[in-house]
Amino acid sequence: MPNEVIYLDHAAATPVDKRVLEAMLPYYSEQFYNPSSPYAPAIAVRNDYEHAKAVIAQSIGAKADELIMTAGATESINLAFGGVSGHIVTCSIEHHAVLQAAKRREHTIVEVDERGSVSVASIADAITPKTELVSIALANNELGTIQQLRTIADVIRQERERRLSVGEVTPIYLHSDASQGVGQLDVQVARLGVDMLTVNAGKVYGPKQVALLWAARSVPISAAIVGGGQERGLRSGTENVAGVIGFAKAVELAVKHRKGEADRLDALRNSLQRQLLKAFPEAIVSGNQKRRLPGHLHISFDGIDAERLVFRLESRGVLVATGSACAANKGTRSHVLTAIGLADSVADGSLRLTLGKLSTEENTHAAAAIIIEEITQEYARMGKIS
Amino acid sequence: MPNEVIYLDHAAATPVDKRVLEAMLPYYSEQFYNPSSPYAPAIAVRNDYEHAKAVIAQSIGAKADELIMTAGATESINLAFGGVSGHIVTCSIEHHAVLQAAKRREHTIVEVDERGSVSVASIADAITPKTELVSIALANNELGTIQQLRTIADVIRQERERRLSVGEVTPIYLHSDASQGVGQLDVQVARLGVDMLTVNAGKVYGPKQVALLWAARSVPISAAIVGGGQERGLRSGTENVAGVIGFAKAVELAVKHRKGEADRLDALRNSLQRQLLKAFPEAIVSGNQKRRLPGHLHISFDGIDAERLVFRLESRGVLVATGSACAANKGTRSHVLTAIGLADSVADGSLRLTLGKLSTEENTHAAAAIIIEEITQEYARMGKIS
Repeated sequence: MPNEVIYLDHAAATPVDKRVLEAMLPYYSEQFYNPSSPYAPAIAVRNDYEHAKAVIAQSIGAKADELIMTAGATESINLAFGGVSGHIVTCSIEHHAVLQAAKRREHTIVEVDERGSVSVASIADAITPKTELVSIALANNELGTIQQLRTIADVIRQERERRLSVGEVTPIYLHSDASQGVGQLDVQVARLGVDMLTVNAGKVYGPKQVALLWAARSVPISAAIVGGGQERGLRSGTENVAGVIGFAKAVELAVKHRKGEADRLDALRNSLQRQLLKAFPEAIVSGNQKRRLPGHLHISFDGIDAERLVFRLESRGVLVATGSACAANKGTRSHVLTAIGLADSVADGSLRLTLGKLSTEENTHAAAAIIIEEITQEYARMGKIS
Repeated sequence: MPNEVIYLDHAAATPVDKRVLEAMLPYYSEQFYNPSSPYAPAIAVRNDYEHAKAVIAQSIGAKADELIMTAGATESINLAFGGVSGHIVTCSIEHHAVLQAAKRREHTIVEVDERGSVSVASIADAITPKTELVSIALANNELGTIQQLRTIADVIRQERERRLSVGEVTPIYLHSDASQGVGQLDVQVARLGVDMLTVNAGKVYGPKQVALLWAARSVPISAAIVGGGQERGLRSGTENVAGVIGFAKAVELAVKHRKGEADRLDALRNSLQRQLLKAFPEAIVSGNQKRRLPGHLHISFDGIDAERLVFRLESRGVLVATGSACAANKGTRSHVLTAIGLADSVADGSLRLTLGKLSTEENTHAAAAIIIEEITQEYARMGKIS
């Protein structure tokens, strides 16, 4: 592999920003105290930790004491689902964490259209008087499609009003996994209309296994991990001080540069898409092109073996994904691509290209040229001249 | 507070060793790839992660694929308890995580003697045909008392044989939280006779919220956090690569220096104990002095207000605990001291002094002198000349 790597898989993992790491470092070997200890240096650590939570909370328009810090988005999602005993509604292209957690309860999985957009009417149809939770990701991790959460929230509000008017007491909540999106979209809990929100540091240039579940005060969260009573008793265990400090710095940087970075990535992604479509007019771009994460491009080349292509591109220093990292290594076809109705030969020829901080005009352009060369060679090898 | 701090609370938190941090650093901003991604740099991260698990496993005489990496000892304990639906036996001085997890099921809590030693006969008496789990910490976090796990394991083996002989099919397992102890004792799962073991990086100069649950292949663990299927499907979520790499380095250093460090801390602690007892012959040393963690000293001064003393000592740069960090900040009396039958006025005058890497002969000696001065002043203030 060449020394110079072009990374086009920001949706799978992001490098920790140097400023984030710098913020974290003092909390490993110097300010290492247990935040529950009673002496001043430990209280200072506690204060820094709480301040970090306040910074993170503010970035999503929430209060610090509404956040439960967790060790990853998957834990947050499981925690959000753990308090619910009734029926759950979610959609077919959700992350495995959501689908697996939903399958532990009575549930309905609604389909999405060919762009990966969940229809608000389908959600409304799926809600029964027993439904307690609707969980729809803010943006899909494979397609980049952004969902209409605000409109889904309206449906839930209407159902709440209906229940109230007929004296039904079953509560209903809206959870959203915003792991993909917080880095590029302005995520405010009130504006989205959600009751619970999952946010993940590892996708916004913060450390891995640091995340949060935001829950409105009215939502009855049931602690999954019990013990010393940290995080308002909802997630016990000595706090990941350095991780949360890093999360706060990552969020602070994301907020500060969001608008400019989103515009930059949007332009870069559009240019990449244009180049690839120019070379292969028959290629299929999936996802909702009107409501899609900037920097996100899902593109399929009918007949190409994408797994083989990933290795060929890797040999030339271009790192891309065929789907989400969780599914990618299991040799199974992505459930997302099946859900949007891609033919097998198209699905199996899919690349997920996700741009981010490591992307420049120069290296994205270079990557496009390499991808075009490799696909052209593959088609030639198959006896098909593109 | 003076610039030079003397830290006597290693049982609450340990500073990350500089070599541990150095091992972790490359995995934040350079080798940041998602270990489930399919390209070579990500596979290299996966390999480093698996190698780290192998190093950790070897240190406790286990295999890497028997480890489930978690975000903290509390999560590990909850995971160990999660697979069990039957009766649980534990003891009254366990960490809150164990006691809270036990209370979610049918359980029996056995008492301990005045040294904090759990009697093996009491465990045997508490086991019923429905008992599925016995959980006893390797060493108590407040008293430093080391339990006779091997003998408890024998009791469980006998119960297993009895069940087999009468055709009872209920399984029974032994779990131990070895968070306190792995840094100073040689912990080998086979020798201890345990079926599950919790080990915590944050107590052995590794990062916080990094831990493991070891479980023998025969133990049916039930995943608490579901999703992408990481850790053999038993703990989903993108791996904490840097944290686990750091954990491995911490364990490697602990094993390498364990014998010498244990002897050094034992001598230091004994010297500290002698100095304090010489000044206050009526002081009460708790814990089992024949089976106690090196570096661990629990000592009570009847009539002293230990919480006040902690602040006075802090003002002179000496950081000590009144009990475990979890309880210390809640203004409640330690359940451990109640369990060993300390009178309230003795319990409320207790200090937990835990030595470790930051302890030297010089600073321990200096701390002893400061503690003696402060207690003498307190007694004088109270009109009681010691």
